[in-house]
Amino acid sequence: MSLINSSTKGVFVIACTPFAEDGALDGESIGRMVDFYYEKGADGLTILGMMGEAPKLTQAESIEVTKLTLKRSEGKPVVVGVSALGLAAIGELTKAAMDLGAAGVMVAPPSALRTDEQIITYYRNVVDTVGADVPVVLQDFPLSTGVQISSKTLGVIFEAHPSIVMLKHEDWPGLQKITDLREAEAKGRRRTSILCGNAGVFLTEEMQRGADGAMTGFAYPEMMVDVVRLSNEGRYEAAQDLFDAYLPLMRYEQQPGLGLAVRKHVLAKRGAIASATQRRPGPALSVLAVKEIEKLIERQVHKLDLLRGRT
Amino acid sequence: MSLINSSTKGVFVIACTPFAEDGALDGESIGRMVDFYYEKGADGLTILGMMGEAPKLTQAESIEVTKLTLKRSEGKPVVVGVSALGLAAIGELTKAAMDLGAAGVMVAPPSALRTDEQIITYYRNVVDTVGADVPVVLQDFPLSTGVQISSKTLGVIFEAHPSIVMLKHEDWPGLQKITDLREAEAKGRRRTSILCGNAGVFLTEEMQRGADGAMTGFAYPEMMVDVVRLSNEGRYEAAQDLFDAYLPLMRYEQQPGLGLAVRKHVLAKRGAIASATQRRPGPALSVLAVKEIEKLIERQVHKLDLLRGRT
Amino acid sequence: MSLINSSTKGVFVIACTPFAEDGALDGESIGRMVDFYYEKGADGLTILGMMGEAPKLTQAESIEVTKLTLKRSEGKPVVVGVSALGLAAIGELTKAAMDLGAAGVMVAPPSALRTDEQIITYYRNVVDTVGADVPVVLQDFPLSTGVQISSKTLGVIFEAHPSIVMLKHEDWPGLQKITDLREAEAKGRRRTSILCGNAGVFLTEEMQRGADGAMTGFAYPEMMVDVVRLSNEGRYEAAQDLFDAYLPLMRYEQQPGLGLAVRKHVLAKRGAIASATQRRPGPALSVLAVKEIEKLIERQVHKLDLLRGRT
Amino acid sequence: MSLINSSTKGVFVIACTPFAEDGALDGESIGRMVDFYYEKGADGLTILGMMGEAPKLTQAESIEVTKLTLKRSEGKPVVVGVSALGLAAIGELTKAAMDLGAAGVMVAPPSALRTDEQIITYYRNVVDTVGADVPVVLQDFPLSTGVQISSKTLGVIFEAHPSIVMLKHEDWPGLQKITDLREAEAKGRRRTSILCGNAGVFLTEEMQRGADGAMTGFAYPEMMVDVVRLSNEGRYEAAQDLFDAYLPLMRYEQQPGLGLAVRKHVLAKRGAIASATQRRPGPALSVLAVKEIEKLIERQVHKLDLLRGRT
Repeated sequence: MSLINSSTKGVFVIACTPFAEDGALDGESIGRMVDFYYEKGADGLTILGMMGEAPKLTQAESIEVTKLTLKRSEGKPVVVGVSALGLAAIGELTKAAMDLGAAGVMVAPPSALRTDEQIITYYRNVVDTVGADVPVVLQDFPLSTGVQISSKTLGVIFEAHPSIVMLKHEDWPGLQKITDLREAEAKGRRRTSILCGNAGVFLTEEMQRGADGAMTGFAYPEMMVDVVRLSNEGRYEAAQDLFDAYLPLMRYEQQPGLGLAVRKHVLAKRGAIASATQRRPGPALSVLAVKEIEKLIERQVHKLDLLRGRT
Repeated sequence: MSLINSSTKGVFVIACTPFAEDGALDGESIGRMVDFYYEKGADGLTILGMMGEAPKLTQAESIEVTKLTLKRSEGKPVVVGVSALGLAAIGELTKAAMDLGAAGVMVAPPSALRTDEQIITYYRNVVDTVGADVPVVLQDFPLSTGVQISSKTLGVIFEAHPSIVMLKHEDWPGLQKITDLREAEAKGRRRTSILCGNAGVFLTEEMQRGADGAMTGFAYPEMMVDVVRLSNEGRYEAAQDLFDAYLPLMRYEQQPGLGLAVRKHVLAKRGAIASATQRRPGPALSVLAVKEIEKLIERQVHKLDLLRGRT
Repeated sequence: MSLINSSTKGVFVIACTPFAEDGALDGESIGRMVDFYYEKGADGLTILGMMGEAPKLTQAESIEVTKLTLKRSEGKPVVVGVSALGLAAIGELTKAAMDLGAAGVMVAPPSALRTDEQIITYYRNVVDTVGADVPVVLQDFPLSTGVQISSKTLGVIFEAHPSIVMLKHEDWPGLQKITDLREAEAKGRRRTSILCGNAGVFLTEEMQRGADGAMTGFAYPEMMVDVVRLSNEGRYEAAQDLFDAYLPLMRYEQQPGLGLAVRKHVLAKRGAIASATQRRPGPALSVLAVKEIEKLIERQVHKLDLLRGRT
Repeated sequence: MSLINSSTKGVFVIACTPFAEDGALDGESIGRMVDFYYEKGADGLTILGMMGEAPKLTQAESIEVTKLTLKRSEGKPVVVGVSALGLAAIGELTKAAMDLGAAGVMVAPPSALRTDEQIITYYRNVVDTVGADVPVVLQDFPLSTGVQISSKTLGVIFEAHPSIVMLKHEDWPGLQKITDLREAEAKGRRRTSILCGNAGVFLTEEMQRGADGAMTGFAYPEMMVDVVRLSNEGRYEAAQDLFDAYLPLMRYEQQPGLGLAVRKHVLAKRGAIASATQRRPGPALSVLAVKEIEKLIERQVHKLDLLRGRT
C-alpha cells in the first residue's frame, strides 16, 4: 500500500465511473479503464471525484468502485474522493477506502462556507474525523464549490495539518496561487504537493510556476503525462507545442456540466470504457456536439502527426 | 403502516436527533423524545430533516434512527428526510425507510438548481427514483437551499406527480404562496397538503390562508398543536393570543445556525432528551445566550398563566 | 453640521423614500415623514438605504432626497447610504452628500466579496475613495448581501480605519458579534458605535449585549426609541414588555421583499407619507395581507393599552 | 445614426475604457482605440460593458466615454452597456446614450433574479423603462451574473418584446442554446441577432451553430473578424486553423478577474491605448504573468506566419 505525501509528483488521472447502458455499474469497464490510464502513463488515479459521478452512487457502489480500482491498480496509488455534506459520511467512506488500501482521500469544502475562519475550522474537523494518519488532498475548486480560499488561508491550513499533503489546484485564475504557495515554502513553510486540475487547460504554465503535475481527467491522459515529463526536463517549448495540439479539444471538454459527456464519449471511442452512459441527471451529447468532437479529434490527430514529423 | 396523503392535516414535529455528550447516538433519548412529542399532541413526526442533523449521521445511523422512531411511534405517521446530493442515495434511503414503515419521504432541492425547468426535471427524477407509490413531501425552503420555486412551478410539479402529496412550506415571505396554491385548487387542480415550517413564526396567518397544519420543530410543540386546533375551530383570536405568548422565544429559536442549539437546550431542559449535545459542526450556546433563553421562558410561563386566567 | 462618531447612540430611523402614485418623488411627504420620525423621538435618520429604494432613484433624485431631508432635519444627523457597484459612484455621491451636510455615509459590501482579504481590501478602497475625514458606517447584512464578515475581520477593518466609526449591525444570528466586539474593546481596541437593524426584532437582547441603539425602519419608531431608552435606564423588563407588544407586527414587517410594502402601508396609514407607492419592481400588498396587517395593528393597540394600564 | 436590429451581423468589439496612469479617463486613447478596432475590421463597438470597467466610472464619465466613442465611430453602430442595480439608472443612462446617437443598449440581469417569472418580469420592466423604440441587447452571462436563463425563457422574452433585438450570448456551455433558438425561429419565432462572447473561445462552433458574429473583447479583434468572415464563406477549416493559432492566448485572456489586465496589457503593447492601467479594484499582472503573455504572443506570431505560408 503506497500513500501519497507532500512530495508526490506526476499525473493522477481523475477516473470516470463507467456505467452500462441501463445505468448499472460496469465493473468490467472499470478494469479496462484502469489499464488504459496506466498504459497512457498515469502515475496514479483519483476516483469518486466530481467527474466520477460520485453523488450518483450508493455507498455500497462507492466501495465496490474503490475495491475494483485498487485491485487493478496493483499497488499504484489511488486517491478516493470522500467529499460529503457531513463529517460522518466523510469519516465512514475514508475508513472503508483506507482499509481497502487507498493512498489518501480528497475533500472539497461544502458550498456554505464563507469566511476564512469557517474554512479553517472545516479542515480541522475533517482531519479530526479521518484521523491525522490519513493523507488528505484539499480540493480547491471555487467554480464548482463557490468557496474561495485565499493563498493565505491555504497556508494556515497546511501549517496546522501536516496530514493535508496535497492541493488539488483548480482555482481560476490560479497561477498566482501556485507562485504564492511556492514562495511561502521557499521562506520556510513545509512543502505541499500541488497537482493541477481544470481539465488541464493551464498545465504548461502551472508546471513552470512550480506545480508537481496534474490531477484531472482529460480523455487523452498521455498529453498530461508528456507535458509533465517535458516540463520536468525543462523542455517547455516542446511541452507547449504538444499542449497546443490538444487545446481545442481540452477547451471543449472543459465545458461545465457537458464536459463529462464529452470525456466519456471520447473514452468509449478510444475503447477505455464500453459505454458513454452517465447516470441521471447528466446531459447527453447532441448529434451536432458529437460532430464537433469528431472534427476536433480529427484535427488533433493531424496536428500530432505534424508535430511528430517535426521532432 | 399509515401513509401521508394529500389530505393529511395536523402537526408533524420536525424531530431533532439526540446525541450523548460524547457524540454517540442516544437511542434511549429518541424514545423519550418521541413520547414527549406525542404527549404534547403531535399527529406525526418528521425525522432526518435539516434540523435533525441528518448530514452528520452515517447511513447506518440514519436507519437506526428511523427504526427506533418508527417502533416507538406505534403506527403514527413518520416522514423521513432523504435529501441528498445524488439520486442514488435518495433511492437507497427511501427504500430502507419505506421498508421499515415510514409514512413518506421528504426531499428538498439541491442548491445548484436555478431555472424552473431544472427544478421540474429534478422532481421528475426523484419520483422516478423512489417510485410513484412512495408519498413525497416537497420541502420548499429557499433561505436554506437557495432554490426559489414559484407558485406556478410548484403547480406544474404537483400536476405531474400525484405522489408528491405534501408541501413543506417554508418560503419567506410565503403567505401568498399558500393563497396561490389554494386558489389553483379551487379552480380544479388536485389538492396538496400544506404543512408549514419556518419555526412556526407565521403559523396563525398560514392557517387562515389555508394551510393544513405545521411541520416544524419549535421546542414547545403544544403551541403548534393548539394554534392549529384553535384555527380549525375558527377561534383565530384565541390562536393569536396563544401564539403571541410564545413568539419571543420562537423568534429566538428561529435564528439560522444557532436555532438548533436553542431548541435542544429547551428540549433537554424539558426532559425530552438527555443532552443538548450537537455533533460537530454545531455552535454551542454562550452563557449569555442561555440567560436570554431562560428569561424568555420565564416570561413565556408568566404570559401563559395570564392567558389561562383570562380564558 | 453634526457628524456621527464612534460614541453615537440612539435611534437612527432608516427612512423610506416617499413616491406619489405615479412614481414621482414626493418631496412634500419627505418633509412630513422627517417630522414624523423626529416627533416619535428619532435621534437621526439614515436615507438611501436598501429599504429607501435607493437603486430605483436617479443620481439627481438621490441628491434631491438628501437635500430635502437635511434641510428638514435642522441639524439633526443624517447618514446617507452610498453603496454602489463601483467606487466611483460611491465617491461621487459621498462628496455630494457631505457637501450638503450629511453626518456620514453608509456602505454595504458588494455581493461578490468572499474571502476576509477581499472584504478588508474593499473597505480600504472605500476609505481611500471617500477620504479619511468622512465618517463611515459599515453595514453588515449578510442575509441581503451574501457577504459574511467575521467578528475578527470586522476588528481588522475597525483598527485600520478610525473613520469607520459605526457598525450597522444586522447579521442573523448576530448577538454574539456584539459581544465579541465589546469584549475586544474591553481589551483595548478602539470603540465603535453599534446600531442594530434587522427590523428591530432582537433589539432588547442587542441593547443588553452592548449595542448603542437602533438603525432600522420599523413603522413604529417610538417602539425603538422607548426600548433604547428603557434599556439605557436598566429597565429591561419594561423594555421587553413594550417590545413584545410590537413583535407580531415587527415579524410581519421583517419579511424580505414584502417588508417595505408593509412599512409604507403603515406609514401612510399613520399619516407620515401620502402614499404607500413603491417604484417598480416592488410587490404590492394583497387584500389578505392588508387585512392581516390591520388585525395586527388592532391587537397592538390593545396590548399597548393594557400595558399602559399596568404601569 | 444607425440602430442595431434583429438581423445585425458581424463583430462588435467590447471596448475597454482607457485610463491614464493616475486613473484619469484617457480621452486621447479612446480615439486611438476606436480607430484601432475599426482598422482591425470591427463592424461596431460595445462600450461600458463589464470589461469596460463601467461600474468604476461616474455617470458624467460614462457619458463622456459614450460621446467620445460615438464621435470617433463616425456613424458605425455603438451599443452602450447600461446594466445597473435599478431601473432608474438604466433609464437615465439609456436616454443619454440614445440622445447621443447610440445604436442600442445592453442589459444584463441583476444577480438576485432566480425564477423564470422574475427574469421575464425584469425584462418587461426594462423595456417599459427605456421605451419600446430603443433596441436592447440581452446579455446572458451566467458565469458572471449567477442568473441562468433557459432557451425557453429567452424565447418568452423575445416574443414579448420585439425591441429586444439581440442576444449577447455567453452562457457556458452555450452551443445548444444557439441551436435551440435557431430551431425555434425555423418554426416561426421572430429572428433575433446572436453575437457571441466568452472571449471568443467557442467562436468557430458558435458560427456553425448559427450565430451572427461576435461581441467580445479579445485583444486581437482581427481573429474574430476573420473567423466570422471565413465562417460566413463556409470555409470552416480555414476559420478553425486561424482560431487555433490564437486559442492559447485567448484561453489566457479568458481568466475571470485577471483577463482584463491581460487584455489591456496587449492593447497597450499593440499601441491601441497608452496605458494598461485599470481603476481600482483591478489586479495587476505579475512579472511572471507578463512573461507568460509575451511567450504566448511570440508563439502566436510564429503560428500565424506558418499559417500564412501554408495558404
